[in-house]
Amino acid sequence: MDELNILELIQQKKYVEVKKILSEMNEVDIAEILEDEELDIATILIIFRMLPKDFAVEVFAHFSSEQQLNLVNAMTDKELKYIIDELFFDDMIDLLEEMPANIVSKILMQSSSEERKLINQFLKYPPDSAGSLMTIEYVELKKDMTVKDAMAHIKETGLSKETVYTCYVTDKNRSLEGIISLRLIVVSNEDALIRDLMEDEIIYVNTHDDQETVAKVFRRYGFLALPVVDTQNRLTGIITVDDIMDVMEQEATEDFQRMAAMSPSDDPYLSSSVFTLSKKRISWLLILMVTATISGRIISSYEELLSSAVILASFMPMLMNTGGSSGSQASTLIIRGLATGEIEMSDVFRVLWKEFRVSVVVGIALAIVNFLRLMYITRASFTVSLTVSLTLFVTIVIAKIVGCVAPIIAKKLRLDPAIMAAPLITTVVDAVALVVYFSIATVLIGI
Amino acid sequence: MDELNILELIQQKKYVEVKKILSEMNEVDIAEILEDEELDIATILIIFRMLPKDFAVEVFAHFSSEQQLNLVNAMTDKELKYIIDELFFDDMIDLLEEMPANIVSKILMQSSSEERKLINQFLKYPPDSAGSLMTIEYVELKKDMTVKDAMAHIKETGLSKETVYTCYVTDKNRSLEGIISLRLIVVSNEDALIRDLMEDEIIYVNTHDDQETVAKVFRRYGFLALPVVDTQNRLTGIITVDDIMDVMEQEATEDFQRMAAMSPSDDPYLSSSVFTLSKKRISWLLILMVTATISGRIISSYEELLSSAVILASFMPMLMNTGGSSGSQASTLIIRGLATGEIEMSDVFRVLWKEFRVSVVVGIALAIVNFLRLMYITRASFTVSLTVSLTLFVTIVIAKIVGCVAPIIAKKLRLDPAIMAAPLITTVVDAVALVVYFSIATVLIGI
Repeated sequence: MDELNILELIQQKKYVEVKKILSEMNEVDIAEILEDEELDIATILIIFRMLPKDFAVEVFAHFSSEQQLNLVNAMTDKELKYIIDELFFDDMIDLLEEMPANIVSKILMQSSSEERKLINQFLKYPPDSAGSLMTIEYVELKKDMTVKDAMAHIKETGLSKETVYTCYVTDKNRSLEGIISLRLIVVSNEDALIRDLMEDEIIYVNTHDDQETVAKVFRRYGFLALPVVDTQNRLTGIITVDDIMDVMEQEATEDFQRMAAMSPSDDPYLSSSVFTLSKKRISWLLILMVTATISGRIISSYEELLSSAVILASFMPMLMNTGGSSGSQASTLIIRGLATGEIEMSDVFRVLWKEFRVSVVVGIALAIVNFLRLMYITRASFTVSLTVSLTLFVTIVIAKIVGCVAPIIAKKLRLDPAIMAAPLITTVVDAVALVVYFSIATVLIGI
Repeated sequence: MDELNILELIQQKKYVEVKKILSEMNEVDIAEILEDEELDIATILIIFRMLPKDFAVEVFAHFSSEQQLNLVNAMTDKELKYIIDELFFDDMIDLLEEMPANIVSKILMQSSSEERKLINQFLKYPPDSAGSLMTIEYVELKKDMTVKDAMAHIKETGLSKETVYTCYVTDKNRSLEGIISLRLIVVSNEDALIRDLMEDEIIYVNTHDDQETVAKVFRRYGFLALPVVDTQNRLTGIITVDDIMDVMEQEATEDFQRMAAMSPSDDPYLSSSVFTLSKKRISWLLILMVTATISGRIISSYEELLSSAVILASFMPMLMNTGGSSGSQASTLIIRGLATGEIEMSDVFRVLWKEFRVSVVVGIALAIVNFLRLMYITRASFTVSLTVSLTLFVTIVIAKIVGCVAPIIAKKLRLDPAIMAAPLITTVVDAVALVVYFSIATVLIGI
């Protein structure tokens, strides 16, 4: 059964069949079908109401925030209350963060005062912090429980928890004393004590840690969930791996955007307006446009040389491009290495030394190819061929070093290294290439 | 206790203390410490032998392949056999893929003939396919089991499985009939039948699916594990989420590398040789160098115009750079959108239309700023200011369209869209910018 057929059935109002088909589908796929532009909100609500209630909440959690808003506006208070009660806490926080103020207060009115307090606390965590990612629905055990007690506790409460596969052992002050996997509980003897089984060397994150840090911890250890503690070391929530996959993707996308001179955004491309998209691109282009005038100045100052040997102008794009690309090769490696943690700040000198040697090898190879090409294919003069090839070599070496150093400096200045990518490196390397070019030309060609 | 202190203790041969400290550490951290360059293989082997045997295997699985090779060469056959027997199947396949032939046969000699058959089958899956990622250590249930039977089965076999949190229900031909989570088993009544609880609409991948596809399925549904079936629909293995996080990171890194004109590689940067690194960069730089000569030709053919108005040369870098950056903004968005699945091939025309409108907005804004700057700051003539600003506008519009169309064409040709990134786009846009520039100049300035 593919998506189009279901849409057809919906439009023909064959709801009995639709219900049957949907009952066999995954909530993610249903949410996608109900996002289709051709459906109006009334139809969506009809279908939404046909789903089993608990399942409807799961589908709701997978809607885009736009669609959630439409539905919240269209549904009754009773329906809203049901969704609020049943949504996982982290999904509810996500929902509230995206809703306009009047909807937020409508939602808050549906929750208990205790829950309202918690919600307000969670809404205060900085965006992209561990606190804003975490959920409070975890399994809490006590260390004097036996395996049997623990199993009974999980059996009773397990369905409403975000995960039951990692359980958290806390004392009466909610300090985290240990963690234990459901696997270990299941394979252990019924009478064994949790205190003897639990792992007490715990890897955790703090509520204010950045989500990038959290993602690194997940990747490093391959965990399914990670506890989040506050400054008093009390367990305040957990983060599960499915949310971290989204973070990893989002962080990589942000780096791609920054490296292409755009202000990063996690709004979906297709639903962003033309003006929003334009705004995210103009500022960096303006900066680059102004920076590029430095190259223009350099060219102007060698106007005399250029007019006496206009042929020199024709090699400028090749020199600037090859230099720029060499530089951005280096900067991309460093930026990505710093982001994944493969390169640490302590490796800086090893990286620099390695890139220097690479630049010499690459520079010599390209300069030789270029010299031969100019002499025997383009049939330029020996002096011009030598000038261009020498410039190429020097530019590649300098470009690699600039490409290497710039992201490291950015990191030291606590800026995002990703801004030191191709566009900015290119502008800098262009200027360098031109100065080197005209200086060598002045000496070799003489004026 | 930080890493340096442990290294000191090791070098002082205070092994009792070292053992105590290591016993409280995570296997990932121990593997990292034992990768330190200052330790010789004899010392590493001493420490490795101090670890509890099962734990040592886990540490082994986290070593780099280089370190694994060193250790395999240094350890006794008996130790090797223990590791081979206890390693998870996917880790063993990874190990074998990286080892030289003589070591592979040494390892194969230590395994049973049945296991050898399986290993040979697994080694045949294409690299980066679902088959090469999967493991065979999963929990297999039968649909006539009760929850109690299933729990007993998991209790007995659970410790040797890669995951117990998703269990797979198969018939006697190993066809996959359903999946069930341990959570559901734990919260259900002891006498309930697996057949009544299991999910029979199963989302799965095939052994030959690309790892990027597998990663997309994981992200979409937030699964902890995914079944892999062969062409006859028989369950051949499972893939777990921890391995997929590595895939996601590796795929993003490859895209970063391709987009910066490098041949992708998953060798770690710091341990790659200068020549290997140089080789990965030279080929693309050569291609770009040769492509850039097109721009050179264009400049040569307007030599006359240029020598009569050398000032025109000084705006070339700005025009080429701004154009190149605009183009690579568009191409980066498309490439990343296609990689994450946010943009589908069916969205092509919507994307093109959107990018066109964005380019007009951005182009007009930059052209106006540029015109005013040239007139009132640079104090260029009206004709020159107009020529440069008009060129800027046209170039930005064309650049955005090229940046948009190129990755889509690459995808249609079944190439990786990531090669159509900044470097290649820049070379194309440079040529376009120059032709537009000189054409407008010829008309406006006249010759």
